[in-house]
Amino acid sequence: MKTPVIALLTDFGEEDFFVGSLKGVIATVNPSVPVVDITHHVPSFDVPAGGFILYAAYRYYPSGTIFLAVVDPGVGTARKILLVETEDYMFVAPDNGLLGLALEAESLKALIDIKNTKYFLPVPSSTFEGRDKMAPAAAWLSKGIAPSEFGPPVSDYVRMDVQKPQVENEEISGQILYVDKFGNCITNIPAEEVRRIQGGTKERRMACRVGKRELTRFEPSYSFVDKGELFVLPGSLGLIEIAVREGSAQERLAIHPGDPVRIFLE
Amino acid sequence: MKTPVIALLTDFGEEDFFVGSLKGVIATVNPSVPVVDITHHVPSFDVPAGGFILYAAYRYYPSGTIFLAVVDPGVGTARKILLVETEDYMFVAPDNGLLGLALEAESLKALIDIKNTKYFLPVPSSTFEGRDKMAPAAAWLSKGIAPSEFGPPVSDYVRMDVQKPQVENEEISGQILYVDKFGNCITNIPAEEVRRIQGGTKERRMACRVGKRELTRFEPSYSFVDKGELFVLPGSLGLIEIAVREGSAQERLAIHPGDPVRIFLE
Amino acid sequence: MKTPVIALLTDFGEEDFFVGSLKGVIATVNPSVPVVDITHHVPSFDVPAGGFILYAAYRYYPSGTIFLAVVDPGVGTARKILLVETEDYMFVAPDNGLLGLALEAESLKALIDIKNTKYFLPVPSSTFEGRDKMAPAAAWLSKGIAPSEFGPPVSDYVRMDVQKPQVENEEISGQILYVDKFGNCITNIPAEEVRRIQGGTKERRMACRVGKRELTRFEPSYSFVDKGELFVLPGSLGLIEIAVREGSAQERLAIHPGDPVRIFLE
Repeated sequence: MKTPVIALLTDFGEEDFFVGSLKGVIATVNPSVPVVDITHHVPSFDVPAGGFILYAAYRYYPSGTIFLAVVDPGVGTARKILLVETEDYMFVAPDNGLLGLALEAESLKALIDIKNTKYFLPVPSSTFEGRDKMAPAAAWLSKGIAPSEFGPPVSDYVRMDVQKPQVENEEISGQILYVDKFGNCITNIPAEEVRRIQGGTKERRMACRVGKRELTRFEPSYSFVDKGELFVLPGSLGLIEIAVREGSAQERLAIHPGDPVRIFLE
Repeated sequence: MKTPVIALLTDFGEEDFFVGSLKGVIATVNPSVPVVDITHHVPSFDVPAGGFILYAAYRYYPSGTIFLAVVDPGVGTARKILLVETEDYMFVAPDNGLLGLALEAESLKALIDIKNTKYFLPVPSSTFEGRDKMAPAAAWLSKGIAPSEFGPPVSDYVRMDVQKPQVENEEISGQILYVDKFGNCITNIPAEEVRRIQGGTKERRMACRVGKRELTRFEPSYSFVDKGELFVLPGSLGLIEIAVREGSAQERLAIHPGDPVRIFLE
Repeated sequence: MKTPVIALLTDFGEEDFFVGSLKGVIATVNPSVPVVDITHHVPSFDVPAGGFILYAAYRYYPSGTIFLAVVDPGVGTARKILLVETEDYMFVAPDNGLLGLALEAESLKALIDIKNTKYFLPVPSSTFEGRDKMAPAAAWLSKGIAPSEFGPPVSDYVRMDVQKPQVENEEISGQILYVDKFGNCITNIPAEEVRRIQGGTKERRMACRVGKRELTRFEPSYSFVDKGELFVLPGSLGLIEIAVREGSAQERLAIHPGDPVRIFLE
C-alpha cells in the first residue's frame, strides 16, 4: 500500500490560528500521516496564483499524496467541495478553478462532491470549511476511506481561466503566468516551442516582446550572464522565464501576471 | 497509550535560527515525536495575541498533545516556566498570561514550576530559555517523563487580562479580541448570546456599534453578502466577527484589538 | 543505526512553489524521513546570513542529521555541489562559503563533489538545482547510500569570508555578524573573552564602541534592565550581543552586519 502524505496549499498565511487548527484536525483523525506544507502564502483569495503554485509543485510528490488546497473566496456559498482522484493523487479543494491547471495534466479516475457529514467536524462553521470539512475529509482519505464514501460523483469541475499560448509559424503569443519571489517572470510559453522555432542554431535569433521592451538575450542558464543582466531563459518548470541574475525582472520591467508576452524570430 | 504531538507557538518569526535550533533540541531528545507549527508569527512580545491564537487552535488537537508556547518578554527574569497538565493536554510556557485564555476552558490536573535542570540543556543561556529549558522539557514530556519530575507543584498561574463581555438585558458590551490576516475583527462576544437576544426572528433587528459606525447587517455567512460588503456574522470560533467579503473590515473601520464593541436590539 | 533527519535552510521564501516541490522530491525518494525547516527566509542570495543561521542552529540537531542548505546565487554555473561528512553530520550545499562557519567547528571525514546523475532527477534544470540535484541527493543519503557513491572526493571547499575578532591586551575588535528579527545585534566577539578581560569583577568597567555610540552598560541578562534600555550582554550563542529590552537595538543604533565593534577596558 502507498504511504499517503497530505500536502497543504492555502492562502491562510502563517500568522493566525488557521493553519494551526487545520493541522490539529488532521492530527486528531490520523496522527501518523505526514503533513507537508507547500505554501500558506498564496495571496488572499488569489485562485490563479494558488492554482499555479499547486501545478508547479504537485508533480514532484510521491504517488499516493493527498493535496488539500484551500483558496476559497466562496466559502459558505453553494460552490462544491471537490474530491478528485487521479492515477497517482487525490485532491481536496473548493470547486472554483484552483485545481484547473494541475488537473489538465492528470487522467481523472473519480470526481466527488464531498457532502457526507460523517467525515466533517460535528458542527461545521460556515466561514472555515477548510478546517471543518476539507481537513477532516483529507485526513479520513489518508486512513484509506474510499473516495466514493465522501459523496455523490459529479460530472465536471470548474476550469482555471488561463489562455493557452498561441503558436503561429515562427511566433508564439502567451502571457506572464506568475512572478516568483526573486522577481522572475514565468510565462505560459513552453521552452521547447522556442527551441523548435529556433531550430537549435544560434544563427536564428529570437526576440521577446514584453511590456515596452524587446529582449534579444536568450541564454540556457544564469551562468551565461553577469549579475544584474536581464535575459530570457528556459525555467525550471519547462516554461520560458524572464529573469535578472541576482535581481528582479519584475522591478526592471514593471510587468504583472496576465501581461502579454510575444516571442518571435527576429 | 496516546501518541504525543508537540505543537509550537512562538513569536520567534521564521527568518532566524530560533525556531530551527529549538526544533533541533526536540529532535535530539525525541527524534520520533511529530512536531507541528501552530505559528511562529505572534507579534514580538505580544502575549495577548499569542494567547488568543493558542486558545483558538489548541482544542482542535488530539488528546495527548503537548503545547510549547513561547512569547516571553520576561525571559531571564524570575517569572516561572510552567508545566500545566489538563484532562487532555500538556502546556509548557512562561508564566505570563500566555496560557490564560486556553486554560479557562480546561480542568487542571497539575501545575508545575519547571526547575529540574536534568531536563534542561547542560548550560542554559539566560536569553533563550525556549531553546534551553522549555524545548527540552517538552521533548522529555513527550517521552513519557511524569510532570511531577520537572519541579514542584505551584498553586496558581498568571491569568490573561481580558474583560468578559457584559450582558445586560438586550445589550452586550465586549471588545475586539483579535484581527486576523484577512482583516476580520473577532470579538469576545459569543454568537449564541446574540442569537438568544434576537430570539431567532429576523423581525427583532440587531445593531452593532464599533468605532464610529453602527452596523445593522447581520448575516449567517459570507454567502449572503456581495464582495466588498461590511457585515456582522458568527465566526468560526463561535464568536461574533465583523467582516468584509473578500476585503478587510479592519481597514474599513480602522479598529484594533481592545476597541469596544456593543451589540443591541435596535 | 542513527535515525536521520533532513534539516532545510534556504532563501526560497515560503510563498512560491520552491520549498513545496523540493519537499515533494524528498518525500518521493524517502517518504519516511522527517524533514525539519530551519528557515527558508534567508535574504535572497545572502550567503553570509544563511551561513550564520546554519552555524547558529546546526549544533542543536541530533547526530545523523543531514543539512540541506541552498542559498545559491551561482546556480547553473561551474560551482560545485558539496557533500560534507563530519563526525556527527552530513551537509549538502553549493560550494560558495555557505557551510564555512559551521564547518569551522567540525572535524571533516569526507568532502565530495556531488556529480553522480543517478541520484539526480532525470532531467535536472539549470536554474533549480536545489530541487533537481541537492534534494534528491540528500534524500538518497538519508536512505543510507554512502557519501562516496555521490561523486569524487575533493580536497577543499570555499570558506566564509568572516574576519576573526582581534584580541590585543585588554581590547577586542570584531564586527556585527547578524541582526535578528528582534533587532538584537549579534557580534563575532566571544562572551568568554570579555569575561576574561573583565576578570569577573564589576570594578573593571568595560565599554563597547559601535557606530557613534559608546555603551557602558554590560549585564548578564534582560532581567537587569528596564524595558527600552540599550545594553551589552552575553547572547544565547556565547557571543556578545547588543540589545534593547523589548525593543530593537538595530533601530536605536542604525548599525548593520559587517559594522565594526570594539570592546575595551574603560
